[in-house]
Amino acid sequence: MRLIPYDNISLFIENAFLRSGVSGGDARICADILITSDLRGIESHGIGRLKMYIERIQKGLIEPVSKPQIIRESPTTALIDGNHGIGMVIGHQSMNIAIAKAKEFGMGAVAVRNSTHFGIDGYYPLMAVKSGMIGMSFTNARPSVAPTFSTQPVLGTNPIAFGAPSDEEFPFLFDAATSITQRGKIEVLNRKEKPVSEYWVIDNHGNPIQDADKILQSLLEKEAALLPLGGAGEVTGGHKGYGLSVIVEILSSSLQSGAFLSALSGFDEEGNETRFRVGHFFFALNIESFLPLEEFKGNLGTLLRELRSAKKSPGKERIYTAGEKEFLTEMQIKKGGIPVNENLENDLHQVEVFLDMRPFQFGKK
Amino acid sequence: MRLIPYDNISLFIENAFLRSGVSGGDARICADILITSDLRGIESHGIGRLKMYIERIQKGLIEPVSKPQIIRESPTTALIDGNHGIGMVIGHQSMNIAIAKAKEFGMGAVAVRNSTHFGIDGYYPLMAVKSGMIGMSFTNARPSVAPTFSTQPVLGTNPIAFGAPSDEEFPFLFDAATSITQRGKIEVLNRKEKPVSEYWVIDNHGNPIQDADKILQSLLEKEAALLPLGGAGEVTGGHKGYGLSVIVEILSSSLQSGAFLSALSGFDEEGNETRFRVGHFFFALNIESFLPLEEFKGNLGTLLRELRSAKKSPGKERIYTAGEKEFLTEMQIKKGGIPVNENLENDLHQVEVFLDMRPFQFGKK
Repeated sequence: MRLIPYDNISLFIENAFLRSGVSGGDARICADILITSDLRGIESHGIGRLKMYIERIQKGLIEPVSKPQIIRESPTTALIDGNHGIGMVIGHQSMNIAIAKAKEFGMGAVAVRNSTHFGIDGYYPLMAVKSGMIGMSFTNARPSVAPTFSTQPVLGTNPIAFGAPSDEEFPFLFDAATSITQRGKIEVLNRKEKPVSEYWVIDNHGNPIQDADKILQSLLEKEAALLPLGGAGEVTGGHKGYGLSVIVEILSSSLQSGAFLSALSGFDEEGNETRFRVGHFFFALNIESFLPLEEFKGNLGTLLRELRSAKKSPGKERIYTAGEKEFLTEMQIKKGGIPVNENLENDLHQVEVFLDMRPFQFGKK
Repeated sequence: MRLIPYDNISLFIENAFLRSGVSGGDARICADILITSDLRGIESHGIGRLKMYIERIQKGLIEPVSKPQIIRESPTTALIDGNHGIGMVIGHQSMNIAIAKAKEFGMGAVAVRNSTHFGIDGYYPLMAVKSGMIGMSFTNARPSVAPTFSTQPVLGTNPIAFGAPSDEEFPFLFDAATSITQRGKIEVLNRKEKPVSEYWVIDNHGNPIQDADKILQSLLEKEAALLPLGGAGEVTGGHKGYGLSVIVEILSSSLQSGAFLSALSGFDEEGNETRFRVGHFFFALNIESFLPLEEFKGNLGTLLRELRSAKKSPGKERIYTAGEKEFLTEMQIKKGGIPVNENLENDLHQVEVFLDMRPFQFGKK
């Protein structure tokens, strides 16, 4: 494994998108969103996904030239058709529209249909935070999660992201799937040859599966399903995670007359790959409409510090607040570099060769 | 146990509030919110709480004459000081303001401080739904939930409520604490002398407690804490439930410079009862800003029906969507009446005697 400086990786990503027919400004946005994921330690959504994006552009599943189109607009809202462009570019533009509306009217919301995978959900609230606002972002996704009392993967991991500025060095940033876990984490366990928690995944009969390799295969074949936050059944609150997931699905599809649930499988009835057609929902709230920004930051900082100073569980030395671990990781990675293992290096080398990128950064020189 | 027609109960509640110094219009609002809880089968938040509200008014902890005051306002937002009035009256008025703003500008949000317990969280989204909107409502509450890696009850049960209209007989309505469970459910198990799930509550050492009676006592003494949705630690996603709870706390206090966490304990340092000072956040989104209302309703209905038609878990005959069970209960209770057991009947009789309400409805004639 090598540690590569994050700005080198960022340039590599930008260059790969450029050579795939993406314009300069859009390529920079893609690089910024992917690198933000790596910096925050969310390996599943960063440079590790570059090859996937490039392949999808090559296959014609993602349009390299993103032309999102405003279908309907009000003082505070917009409905946008992504026209199958790059989700990150569409998301970036949509959140900027929400922020501009919030600046003028107090709040802004943008609903998007016909988009593609937009990277980490948490990136978009961070845009709002930089403008002194509260930001939220939601997206639906390929079916993989079973509703309560079902074994069928019907819902996506449907994440919720929420960010708010504080008086600390880093904002409050919540960014989480409404399922207990997601595919990326199981891939990580598989690489490390570790078993999966018995609470995460069920097979077609509702029994837990713990073999990571088998889970990954079964998920593809729809023979397994992730469980919603709260777990199976209602006793531990699984219906709550299920309900939250449906809220995200509503915000990502019902307002847009967009695709949802099985329509997001990525395949048509003959098994051919289709457009992704995922939907998103972005929301910005101008804090200054309620109180001076600095007062809000102080209020939130005091709240977070009171949480961290609560009595620790036996054996635990520290209580974190959302976004804190990711901030600490970012400080570390900015100094040390992004870990690139052999598999990833091979992937990136393939991207280099395929896109005829010279001088080579990765693999054999 | 007797079954009392719900409109009799509703009149009784209204009358009790009237005789406590609450104005006619406000008393009707309180009755409507409490009875909505009973109709939906949420016994913990309905007529069972009437005595508590009346006592709190008598003690001067809740002002019978609610005078919420707009502190700051923008086209889409308002900050309101509840001035310790009745939470239900304040909530009703605040949600109406959010709806009016959404009608004009697409969205409306109202943040409230210095309020008191406002009944079921789900009532307020239902108001938005009746206006053809999506509604959301949040509130913080007395500390009872431990953050991840803590054993101390610091956060409230901090519920999230979200409602949206569909083409079915009843709307989608999610209304859930961000903890796995809440005190009311443990009280129900205690009455039935049943053990509590090992996943719900921990003691000061982080060990599960299952004796309902002991839990209720320990919660009062801060010797026990409810667990966030997702459970203890991070493996089953407890940090997600914890994070969602903090989001609710932020929306309910940081925007309003209101009280939060330990300040909501209900007692001062000498152990005297204090004002409640809880905060709320109400949000309305005008669906017509995005697409015709009927189209949205059809989209959502189709989504909900696809969820219900997913493959069932072994032994399960039905998959529900949020608000469906409560709708079914409502149909039943409207026909059969609200179950009033002996304990509750005694409580109501005490209220009757105390408020000199005649003719008596409850207890010895």
